[in-house]
Amino acid sequence: MSDIDGLRTEVNHALSEFVSTQGRYLISIGEELEPVAITLEKFLLESGKRLRPLFAYVGMVGAGVKPSKDLISAAASLELLHVCALIHDDVMDASDTRRGAPSIHKTFEKMHLDKKMVGNSSQFGIASAILIGDLALIWSAQMLHNSTIPTEKLISALGVYDEMRVELMSGQYLDVYEQSLGTESINRSMKVARYKSGKYTIERPLHFGAALAQAPNDLFKTYTEYGIPLGEAFQLRDDLLGVFGDPTQTGKPAGDDLREGKRTALIAIALKKASDSQRKLIKDKLGDPNLTSSMISDLQQAITDSGATNHIETMIEKLTNTSLSALNHDGISADGKRYLTELAVLATNRKI
Amino acid sequence: MSDIDGLRTEVNHALSEFVSTQGRYLISIGEELEPVAITLEKFLLESGKRLRPLFAYVGMVGAGVKPSKDLISAAASLELLHVCALIHDDVMDASDTRRGAPSIHKTFEKMHLDKKMVGNSSQFGIASAILIGDLALIWSAQMLHNSTIPTEKLISALGVYDEMRVELMSGQYLDVYEQSLGTESINRSMKVARYKSGKYTIERPLHFGAALAQAPNDLFKTYTEYGIPLGEAFQLRDDLLGVFGDPTQTGKPAGDDLREGKRTALIAIALKKASDSQRKLIKDKLGDPNLTSSMISDLQQAITDSGATNHIETMIEKLTNTSLSALNHDGISADGKRYLTELAVLATNRKI
Repeated sequence: MSDIDGLRTEVNHALSEFVSTQGRYLISIGEELEPVAITLEKFLLESGKRLRPLFAYVGMVGAGVKPSKDLISAAASLELLHVCALIHDDVMDASDTRRGAPSIHKTFEKMHLDKKMVGNSSQFGIASAILIGDLALIWSAQMLHNSTIPTEKLISALGVYDEMRVELMSGQYLDVYEQSLGTESINRSMKVARYKSGKYTIERPLHFGAALAQAPNDLFKTYTEYGIPLGEAFQLRDDLLGVFGDPTQTGKPAGDDLREGKRTALIAIALKKASDSQRKLIKDKLGDPNLTSSMISDLQQAITDSGATNHIETMIEKLTNTSLSALNHDGISADGKRYLTELAVLATNRKI
Repeated sequence: MSDIDGLRTEVNHALSEFVSTQGRYLISIGEELEPVAITLEKFLLESGKRLRPLFAYVGMVGAGVKPSKDLISAAASLELLHVCALIHDDVMDASDTRRGAPSIHKTFEKMHLDKKMVGNSSQFGIASAILIGDLALIWSAQMLHNSTIPTEKLISALGVYDEMRVELMSGQYLDVYEQSLGTESINRSMKVARYKSGKYTIERPLHFGAALAQAPNDLFKTYTEYGIPLGEAFQLRDDLLGVFGDPTQTGKPAGDDLREGKRTALIAIALKKASDSQRKLIKDKLGDPNLTSSMISDLQQAITDSGATNHIETMIEKLTNTSLSALNHDGISADGKRYLTELAVLATNRKI
């Protein structure tokens, strides 16, 4: 077990305790809320890398703080924010699966069908998923508020917390908007990546940890230097996994982003570097919801043959190195450096 | 101008200041976010009764506190929570209009169509509305956090704030669920009304104000005695307006709830009291999306002839009286009593 696995266990413990308490409270309002409580608990606890809580945790360690139970609970609250983003994202994309299981709106659609309820099952599924996502967003804040951390730490963290949440929703909108422009701009794709994932997954959680530790301003700057390039590398890995990921590991169908027609930096670079025939294939087939597995193979081949896959791998490597070089800074504790090095690998060299 | 109108002006001023600052910040992230900022500002400022901020405001006055600018800002933050609920509600109900204008998802669907953007316009509209609702939920918390009220008041208010938000989402789910059961139970409809509107619109905002004023426990109890029956009366008025409301005032099409097939206490009572032929008409036509205006008139007539309309009016009157009698309590300031009496009329004797 790596060091990070140990921290993840502590985070999971805090999450499990919180959702089981809150789930019981929901059911006390009305037993009709039992499926909501169960589904949200399952979605939260059965998978997830816990990257955002881990960066928050390590953000504190880097500031020389060994997080107590209450601070771990505050860090863990970020996972519920992420759960909101995932649940709403699946409604927005009309994605049927998440982490290898039916997405939340599909789960509630099925419940409506199975129970032969009145009205439109799909609409019931969507309504339930919107509300469950809202609830996750609220639970995240409640977990932070109720973490029993000292008031001055809470106040210090709330500013970063709000900024992160506004950036997350802004990044999500920019992403939806860029998809609707069918963008081929590498710069624009990278900007979306920065807001959608970079800041939200890495830089802001580190800042959140630094704020909880009431760290000096210098450390916030160092975390930005480490976090922004690593966040971009993280998103580029995501782009590769969306096209080349192994479905048994990602829990998403093979070539999911191709079928969805997702406009990523990978696609922008492929279109730029491709031969005429490769470009024609990509333009013709990208976003076709009826892509067969052989068409997906052809698209994957064209993207790789264009040189885009290697180009992105090189970008990931460079960005990760830039990120790691920011750790040569006296202001970060030795334990913090060790964890941050391990997390950089976890964020960029992953299969899921 | 009534006393309450004066308070509403102060609330509107706080909201206007907050959203224009936050809107500018959004646009600084990306100019693509301008439609988000403009739409949300317009939706927030162009209409709305501000009931929840007003109850929070008066909750403070009742505790003997004259709210300063920062406390008014904290009270006003509740309106953004309500905006989230309305925007998401319209996606959940697939409602095309709100307050006489296109709902948010329809506005963004139209933008997608007008700009001839890539992909499905309806899906783009839904995605945008989900994110804008999320943003409103986050802005509400940010407005509260940034209100610059003293820390001990903020901490005291956060507990009530979280509880209100969880109850809101639970009430919304119970409502969606009850609609899908096609319930005819008066008790169940009243329970949904209690969570969805009663607690969320009146009791909890009063508690929120009391918490901001750090009032004694007794006042919280009095506010509950006033708030719960008034909240039920508020929802019953809503039920009547959904069936009999004047479209030029409500901003919703005539008989909107009939077309939607909404299961309310009004419908439950009508079905119980109706003659066989009235019951058959209601059961046959309720929820038919293609109801003509003459069919709507017939349904309205059947509901009134069953005696349900009068029955609900009597319930509203009784509940309002019960609510007002809770004001005979030494713990509430004279100004508080005056405002709460005016608000009781506003909440139950309204046209919109």
